Amino acid sequence: MADYIAPLQRLIEEFRKLPGIGGKTAVRLAFSIVTGTSERAEAFSDAILTAKREIRACSVCCNLSASELCPICSDPDRDRSTICVVEDARAVMAMERIRDYKGMYHVLGGALSPMNGITPDRLHIKELLSRLASSEVREVIIATNPTVEGETTASYLARLLEPFEIKVTRLAYGIPVGGDLEYADEVTLHRAMSGRTNLL
Amino acid sequence: MADYIAPLQRLIEEFRKLPGIGGKTAVRLAFSIVTGTSERAEAFSDAILTAKREIRACSVCCNLSASELCPICSDPDRDRSTICVVEDARAVMAMERIRDYKGMYHVLGGALSPMNGITPDRLHIKELLSRLASSEVREVIIATNPTVEGETTASYLARLLEPFEIKVTRLAYGIPVGGDLEYADEVTLHRAMSGRTNLL
Repeated sequence: MADYIAPLQRLIEEFRKLPGIGGKTAVRLAFSIVTGTSERAEAFSDAILTAKREIRACSVCCNLSASELCPICSDPDRDRSTICVVEDARAVMAMERIRDYKGMYHVLGGALSPMNGITPDRLHIKELLSRLASSEVREVIIATNPTVEGETTASYLARLLEPFEIKVTRLAYGIPVGGDLEYADEVTLHRAMSGRTNLL
Repeated sequence: MADYIAPLQRLIEEFRKLPGIGGKTAVRLAFSIVTGTSERAEAFSDAILTAKREIRACSVCCNLSASELCPICSDPDRDRSTICVVEDARAVMAMERIRDYKGMYHVLGGALSPMNGITPDRLHIKELLSRLASSEVREVIIATNPTVEGETTASYLARLLEPFEIKVTRLAYGIPVGGDLEYADEVTLHRAMSGRTNLL
């Protein structure tokens, strides 16, 4: 028996397609399914189908939503004059966790990466522009990730938003709180220096 | 939006039930499903149900199998005089990878752990005894894991097999090949010393 039996092999391969799941982990997870109860396997299988079927993009901000509008876009208490532009819905969750941002979001659905075929038309940029054209937005905070792709996207958006004559900002770069200068990479330190603030 | 939307939350919780999957990983995996294609979600969901439905225990050795007998038990070329007793089907796969064991297996389905309610009647020990009673087995190799539970199971089985008057062996303990003495724990070193072999 060189290989796993077919249905197990197939399940292992499905687990391997998940991000960050390597061969050994996929085997462990697949075994836990086949050695677990049928009820658990059914609940898991159903949760996957249900989530995929019921979750769609919010028609305004493209955040994940179980209804036409996501909970943020349908909340009348949020400040509609500010839009925080992020790469994906996970970034929305991260921002929401800090609990002091009360504005809106716009989820791009990724970051520009021409090498991987992610060109501006693949992101929800058109939707952002139409929101800006038809609403009372006064500030766009670009909160794409601090990666090459995120930076490229931020510059691209900044240029694109120029004609709207609204405030366009970018999240600050610097040393992370609780971090250690010794372990900070050079680029971060450089950004922390050039973005230094006055104390006195 | 303090929490994730319901179907996403449910999927995250299903992922969290998998062994070794923590909160952040569960979120990452669940997002990859809802942001992926419907085809992928369906294939994954179906692989889970199919694996669970089609895989059962081999009627002889209790190894995972897609048919009445597992590929090993149905292979006429395997040596039926030796049975290697392991805790689970993953150990069978590990042993098969070394490619030089040509005997049979017996999968216990766990290791004794009275604290966790795993008593002898919860393991496939009865099935092992009936195999021994009715076949030409000459050696039982106990290959339970080198843990407290695995050791307990090994001693329990050794006592239980005494009346059969067959050879009962245990996998050797020692320093792992490619390991470093400096990093070996004391118990392993102690076992390596007491199990030392003659060179001259």
